[in-house]
Amino acid sequence: MAKSLRVGIAGLGTVGTGLLDLLAKHGAVIALRAGRPIEITGICARSRTKNRGHDLSMITWFDDPTALAASDGIDVFVELMGGEGDPAKSAVTAALMAGKPVVTANKALLAHHGTHLARLADEKAIALNFEAAVAGGIPIVKTMREALAGNQAAKVFGILNGTCNYILTKMAEEGRSFADVLKEAQQLGYAEADPTFDIGGFDTAHKLAILTSLAFGSEVNVAAIDIEGIEAVTLADIRNADAMGFKIKLLGVAVASADGIEQRVHPTLVPKGSPVADTDGVFNAVVVHCDFAGDLMLEGRGAGSHPTASAVLSDIVDIARGNLRPSFGIPGKELRKYKSAPKRAHEGGYYVALELYDRPGAVAAIAKVLADEKISIESIVQRAPAKEGAIASFMLVTHKTLDSSMRQALARIESDGHVASKPRTIRIERM
Amino acid sequence: MAKSLRVGIAGLGTVGTGLLDLLAKHGAVIALRAGRPIEITGICARSRTKNRGHDLSMITWFDDPTALAASDGIDVFVELMGGEGDPAKSAVTAALMAGKPVVTANKALLAHHGTHLARLADEKAIALNFEAAVAGGIPIVKTMREALAGNQAAKVFGILNGTCNYILTKMAEEGRSFADVLKEAQQLGYAEADPTFDIGGFDTAHKLAILTSLAFGSEVNVAAIDIEGIEAVTLADIRNADAMGFKIKLLGVAVASADGIEQRVHPTLVPKGSPVADTDGVFNAVVVHCDFAGDLMLEGRGAGSHPTASAVLSDIVDIARGNLRPSFGIPGKELRKYKSAPKRAHEGGYYVALELYDRPGAVAAIAKVLADEKISIESIVQRAPAKEGAIASFMLVTHKTLDSSMRQALARIESDGHVASKPRTIRIERM
Repeated sequence: MAKSLRVGIAGLGTVGTGLLDLLAKHGAVIALRAGRPIEITGICARSRTKNRGHDLSMITWFDDPTALAASDGIDVFVELMGGEGDPAKSAVTAALMAGKPVVTANKALLAHHGTHLARLADEKAIALNFEAAVAGGIPIVKTMREALAGNQAAKVFGILNGTCNYILTKMAEEGRSFADVLKEAQQLGYAEADPTFDIGGFDTAHKLAILTSLAFGSEVNVAAIDIEGIEAVTLADIRNADAMGFKIKLLGVAVASADGIEQRVHPTLVPKGSPVADTDGVFNAVVVHCDFAGDLMLEGRGAGSHPTASAVLSDIVDIARGNLRPSFGIPGKELRKYKSAPKRAHEGGYYVALELYDRPGAVAAIAKVLADEKISIESIVQRAPAKEGAIASFMLVTHKTLDSSMRQALARIESDGHVASKPRTIRIERM
Repeated sequence: MAKSLRVGIAGLGTVGTGLLDLLAKHGAVIALRAGRPIEITGICARSRTKNRGHDLSMITWFDDPTALAASDGIDVFVELMGGEGDPAKSAVTAALMAGKPVVTANKALLAHHGTHLARLADEKAIALNFEAAVAGGIPIVKTMREALAGNQAAKVFGILNGTCNYILTKMAEEGRSFADVLKEAQQLGYAEADPTFDIGGFDTAHKLAILTSLAFGSEVNVAAIDIEGIEAVTLADIRNADAMGFKIKLLGVAVASADGIEQRVHPTLVPKGSPVADTDGVFNAVVVHCDFAGDLMLEGRGAGSHPTASAVLSDIVDIARGNLRPSFGIPGKELRKYKSAPKRAHEGGYYVALELYDRPGAVAAIAKVLADEKISIESIVQRAPAKEGAIASFMLVTHKTLDSSMRQALARIESDGHVASKPRTIRIERM
């Protein structure tokens, strides 16, 4: 058998430990699949003494990830530290400069420096692989980079953050408030002490930026993403959506047209029975619409030690086999300048929630504003107030609507004096 | 740029023509993804004069696919003729013997000769790729062969035949009989004049045999599959299943344990909301349960000219890139002898439909037989007969049940004289 592929791992947290588990359990069959044994010859982590359940005494220890990255003792550098800046960035750069292929699970690094790093890898004619950076155990990077090579994509979207999906699922299933479920998720370790990165949509945005470049051959541009988190989603929204045939999910969505690209992250009403609507709990799902393969959905475990390690291992095996692809499917120098599409009609329409003073003429006034703005209503749910004159919940779902018309209408509705609070909208995606 | 990859295509039916469309439309970007242009330099088809919407005058024509396969003018042989025997078999063999990589969409060929051909490809150290042979535009072969390289699979199952799924979906949605929907499907061209191959489950079995080898590293063994088609599924079954929370799908299922492998194709009750339950119409879906990545589902277009051409193209690009994997993930010589698992408990339980004479003691007799055989009932639906003494529909769903107990119970029920027709069962899969 061919000689071992020598792997250096920087970062032995959840994913790194999962990779140790995986190689310990399946080393023999992986050698058959890779055509050669995979051997860990260098490691670097924060703590040298922490018990990770594996004997690491035979593996060379590095205190400095950049030293490991450029070491003569490794053939591949696996970066599992995370973070968009140093030490991850300098270590990955050092490995590439030294001509060593890189495998990384670091979505923040790629979202911010993906184009640059992909070009650097191309210059050296080596791999920069990142299956684990998007949707954990779901092979969406390989699928878009390789399997869909004969396609032009029109749209890619998905549920890319398990924490958010867990919270929204629990709220729906158990009829609990956002704050209540978030607190429980934190206690269970499903959400961070500071949950902003997840629930604010930023993690989803990092992953979406990578998918966008894979889908459309554009430079990575996370700054161009409109981001809205799930903090404002109420149990009432979920119940109203349910009554009108929808579920609420946090989606990352990227759409391309001749005018440019639109990237957005926001809570979304998705019709029940449509692809991602049944993706519940910590599961992730990604849908790609493309011209030859048609609509394709992948669903699976988007995070966790073992699923993510499975993705990292897949990237390592590709390198062991000498199977090289440009990071984003086409050579880095061919990635086009990112061009934002002008805002236009939102094809899917909107869900609008209003708190209405219960008095004669209120509904008529709202209806007139919408008609004036040429917004067409698909369905309405009004819940009676507890007593006459109190505040009524008034929700509606629109057909395809111009973004500008919707904003105009909401401003008028707010100033008309019939609503007790700021109107809220959630976009709908019909797949 | 590197020199062109010269492709020879045998078979210009639906898929072959789709491949011509694809290369005509996306040739430029495919060259970027493949690192070199893809050029068709040889073709062979039944009719030389048929108009396929493309100018083929510059491409060398072959009357004999085997001559094309071994021709010096091609680097890759693409077999799109179909059929388990000649000319497909001899042409593919000729290409491999001549050291030319092969791409094929031919599931029948692989189901019957996959092990042999994979070993031949290995001997020559060339690719035998067949993404298009299973589930059309869904990249399940690449996923299992490459993306899940770090996993041991426990189970793979899916909806693998669009014709059957279309028929079952239409029956459910429009309340029509099997015969009625089949007739319409034939008129629309979704089903063949002789539909046996699809509705009898044989097409699903071919695809399942390939998935089984990819999942478990075993020799391909289509002969070991228990096959039952959808011909006997009634509208009443679909309605009863619906009332008890299930949909009926034709599944191919392969399960591995230390005792061996179980492969079966049959109509199946799947719980609503579970992965494949919402895969309707002509869509296909495949689910893999594996130890590190967890549960993974891929859903998309399982047939058709363009989706299947997309899969063929993906295989060609891998060859253009020099990205070589063993056909079934591990080297052909490492594929283990196929070992059938002994029949045991069916974990998912059974749906049982009985036509019962409406008279005192009938239900009690049925219940006693089931109790005697230690079969535990989950739910029962009984529909009243039109008039007293007439025949009542009696359906039940069992918990996990021994295969042998179920057979014994059904034999006793049939001989007891309370049923007006042979009892029918459909297996349940709970994911």
